[in-house]
Amino acid sequence: MKFKISSSLSYDVVAPTTYFFNILVSKAEGQTILEESIIISPPLFFEEFTLKDSEVRFLKLYVNYGSFTINYTATVEVNETVIDENTLLFSKPLTDIDPEVLPFISPSRHCESDKLMKFALKEFGDFPNQFEKVKAISDWVFKTVEYVGGTTNSSTSACDTIISRQGVCKDFAHLGIALCRALDIPARYLTTYAANLNPPDIHACFEAYLGNQWVAFDPTRLSSPNKMVKIAHAKDASEVAVLIYYGQTICTNMDVQCDGVLG
Amino acid sequence: MKFKISSSLSYDVVAPTTYFFNILVSKAEGQTILEESIIISPPLFFEEFTLKDSEVRFLKLYVNYGSFTINYTATVEVNETVIDENTLLFSKPLTDIDPEVLPFISPSRHCESDKLMKFALKEFGDFPNQFEKVKAISDWVFKTVEYVGGTTNSSTSACDTIISRQGVCKDFAHLGIALCRALDIPARYLTTYAANLNPPDIHACFEAYLGNQWVAFDPTRLSSPNKMVKIAHAKDASEVAVLIYYGQTICTNMDVQCDGVLG
Amino acid sequence: MKFKISSSLSYDVVAPTTYFFNILVSKAEGQTILEESIIISPPLFFEEFTLKDSEVRFLKLYVNYGSFTINYTATVEVNETVIDENTLLFSKPLTDIDPEVLPFISPSRHCESDKLMKFALKEFGDFPNQFEKVKAISDWVFKTVEYVGGTTNSSTSACDTIISRQGVCKDFAHLGIALCRALDIPARYLTTYAANLNPPDIHACFEAYLGNQWVAFDPTRLSSPNKMVKIAHAKDASEVAVLIYYGQTICTNMDVQCDGVLG
Amino acid sequence: MKFKISSSLSYDVVAPTTYFFNILVSKAEGQTILEESIIISPPLFFEEFTLKDSEVRFLKLYVNYGSFTINYTATVEVNETVIDENTLLFSKPLTDIDPEVLPFISPSRHCESDKLMKFALKEFGDFPNQFEKVKAISDWVFKTVEYVGGTTNSSTSACDTIISRQGVCKDFAHLGIALCRALDIPARYLTTYAANLNPPDIHACFEAYLGNQWVAFDPTRLSSPNKMVKIAHAKDASEVAVLIYYGQTICTNMDVQCDGVLG
Repeated sequence: MKFKISSSLSYDVVAPTTYFFNILVSKAEGQTILEESIIISPPLFFEEFTLKDSEVRFLKLYVNYGSFTINYTATVEVNETVIDENTLLFSKPLTDIDPEVLPFISPSRHCESDKLMKFALKEFGDFPNQFEKVKAISDWVFKTVEYVGGTTNSSTSACDTIISRQGVCKDFAHLGIALCRALDIPARYLTTYAANLNPPDIHACFEAYLGNQWVAFDPTRLSSPNKMVKIAHAKDASEVAVLIYYGQTICTNMDVQCDGVLG
Repeated sequence: MKFKISSSLSYDVVAPTTYFFNILVSKAEGQTILEESIIISPPLFFEEFTLKDSEVRFLKLYVNYGSFTINYTATVEVNETVIDENTLLFSKPLTDIDPEVLPFISPSRHCESDKLMKFALKEFGDFPNQFEKVKAISDWVFKTVEYVGGTTNSSTSACDTIISRQGVCKDFAHLGIALCRALDIPARYLTTYAANLNPPDIHACFEAYLGNQWVAFDPTRLSSPNKMVKIAHAKDASEVAVLIYYGQTICTNMDVQCDGVLG
Repeated sequence: MKFKISSSLSYDVVAPTTYFFNILVSKAEGQTILEESIIISPPLFFEEFTLKDSEVRFLKLYVNYGSFTINYTATVEVNETVIDENTLLFSKPLTDIDPEVLPFISPSRHCESDKLMKFALKEFGDFPNQFEKVKAISDWVFKTVEYVGGTTNSSTSACDTIISRQGVCKDFAHLGIALCRALDIPARYLTTYAANLNPPDIHACFEAYLGNQWVAFDPTRLSSPNKMVKIAHAKDASEVAVLIYYGQTICTNMDVQCDGVLG
Repeated sequence: MKFKISSSLSYDVVAPTTYFFNILVSKAEGQTILEESIIISPPLFFEEFTLKDSEVRFLKLYVNYGSFTINYTATVEVNETVIDENTLLFSKPLTDIDPEVLPFISPSRHCESDKLMKFALKEFGDFPNQFEKVKAISDWVFKTVEYVGGTTNSSTSACDTIISRQGVCKDFAHLGIALCRALDIPARYLTTYAANLNPPDIHACFEAYLGNQWVAFDPTRLSSPNKMVKIAHAKDASEVAVLIYYGQTICTNMDVQCDGVLG
């Protein structure tokens, strides 16, 4: 399926600031960027870079003062993923899985899986296999957490969300990830452009490593795995926020559009 | 029913210490102290006092050095409470309840009800009346929290227990109280001598204010309302720990015995 | 000195709500209410009550729907307190102090003194007496915490403020109280009308029990003990917020005025 | 300088367990492994692996039952690092530093730098350059935190340590890292074999990225940069604990020896 993405972000630069944006579509397997443009007005020097062995494409800018707008557009072809649930039932034992997956079992800033071992075991331990466990986790997050904008901030973590029972897509994702890791199931944070999201915004969900592959789950149920274009994955939002900046700046406008289009 | 209580606590005094014990049976309505003795060896001066409008009987000691043992025995007649559930179904509106009950709706050190409003509403909001809500809370605490000694300390609070899913009787009580208060149901902490408790110890549970009376619930299910002698009630354990002390001391032994005896 | 107080609070009643206001001047020792009026528009039935052995005057209202405004005015004569620092140097040992003071050494919802024992000992343990310790605590809170409106909420506690280093008067007070209690110095929360406060609002500070009396400290330095009229004291703000309500309501306006006037 | 290392760790295997040990000396720049041996008794199959672009050498074992002991010995030549403080005074602006360093500015599980921005700015913001700031941070951690074994666990984070004021080397390191990152100074966790450590154990400290290089600081002052052999660095201990395991096991013995030897 094809997706047309258009993203426009405007900033006032309060003090000289270094910006690292995570808004470019990832060159991940299964999706092909057919066309893409980055236009900054006024024209400003920017760099694109990728950390070693990562698919995350950072956009780096240094701005001294003034205001600017980034307009990003892309057309992306995404192969439909058909998950054969049978292949997910028998997960590899940890000793045999790719070592690169291991960092995604450790707790991270927003996913304190180390505190949730007994919690996860009691709530989800009885499901018969890892796939059923992750499905149950995603359903439980959907059912117990209410989607309410403006109730959380960039310090909110999975344990906070268990208590407050409210949050936005990043909080749903963090809680899902933390509960998977608490059961020794590798899980990672995923940001995406999701088709026809309402309200339109950059979306976050999570992937669990099941039967030797990363499988996406959206505990908000606002989108679903085959209706999204991947931007970045990471241990959690602390590594791939839409914008990480050093300096002082104010976001004055953000428009995100993603539409699924017929072939 | 009659209960025979015998409590023996030994301490090493590391530095001069002021002790406030909460181990004497309360002169609460519904229970009569038939006989009682307090023996301290070696003999030490002690005082008993009660805060204004409280039934809590504090035992105050100041000890400079050495070791000591308190032996407390009591025989107590407790009237059986028969709760007529029908009287609990229609709770007074908050505007009409006794103002003295109001402090037990506020959050307290170990019961952060202010953080659990949505949690309590989502889990227990649909039960048809306050009595059913409190029963559901007590059952939920029993089912979700595991009784494990040594996993919590005197700083552990209700929110910690929701995350860790383990604790001892005080933690069960704090969680029950916090969830009641989050639904605007007054609730208080209760310490008791519970008959035939295994292992024998001073017990903690909670009371909710329903239909104009305090009704006891034991979310640990280790005892039950008619098998206990009341020691003290308070907002939470921060106010009525078995021992509050200022100085430095080590508890070297604690034996608690409570037996129900035939008339 | 005389103070003229005028307080106007307006609310929209979203759902039937029971209101408990803490805005009436306390009948505490040292201050005399010369005149006072409470006018609610539209006229609504209200009750004033006081918990046993408390000076806190609650104003209780039950409102079904609509909007209302409370106008409270008072003229209060306050005796100047001259603290003789010499009387504060030798505090009574805990064994000898009035038992009614003891509850103010226990931790409370917003003052987790139990977690701050070592912190308080390391920072303030070396000051030569309790008065010097409390002065040092109040100065330290002033110096380390920044007064920033809108950064905290009704769940914020002393430990949160140590980390965030920002807050409003209630947060400064909670931190001062927690550190006193961590050193076994009784301390309580105090709400006041403070003369010429900028911006005008109901103010919060704290009192420590020193040498047998309660002595006020204002760690925000926005006011000072002889420029305030007492409203209420309590373990912390969870017990005496300006408004505790059960229902659903929105504050649409709040004007507080307090002026010191010549005899 | 040369170091002789000998490490012996024994485990009881309670249930089938996958072990990932971080005890092998790193092949980091500046240190050369002259000889090395890994002996497991009884003999068990193990694998060594390294994550892409990492110097961390994991030792992987899967054990079904029984007990085992790992004996690791190594002789390592470490080049003395002479830090020319002048080179550290002028740090590169963030826009110019190696992107691979950026992940070490983000908060991590045990280093909640996002919560400590104002804290760090108020305490250390006035030091004239990044080198002076990090030195001040390391000194402050040494002075305010007490080294007390057994008071923290694997969930303890920098914010916890600010409150409790106690911990072990990992807690000192986490706090140092969090404060650096809160000032936008990249910082990472470092585990080492430290010569003549008392009591002997695997040590933890931290590195800050200053003037284009990683510079080590030991806020415990139990060792110092030129008396250590590097094992691993990472965002924090959640990624490089001595042992990460999945299963159930008990450590029955741990002997670590590291001696500096003459050429």
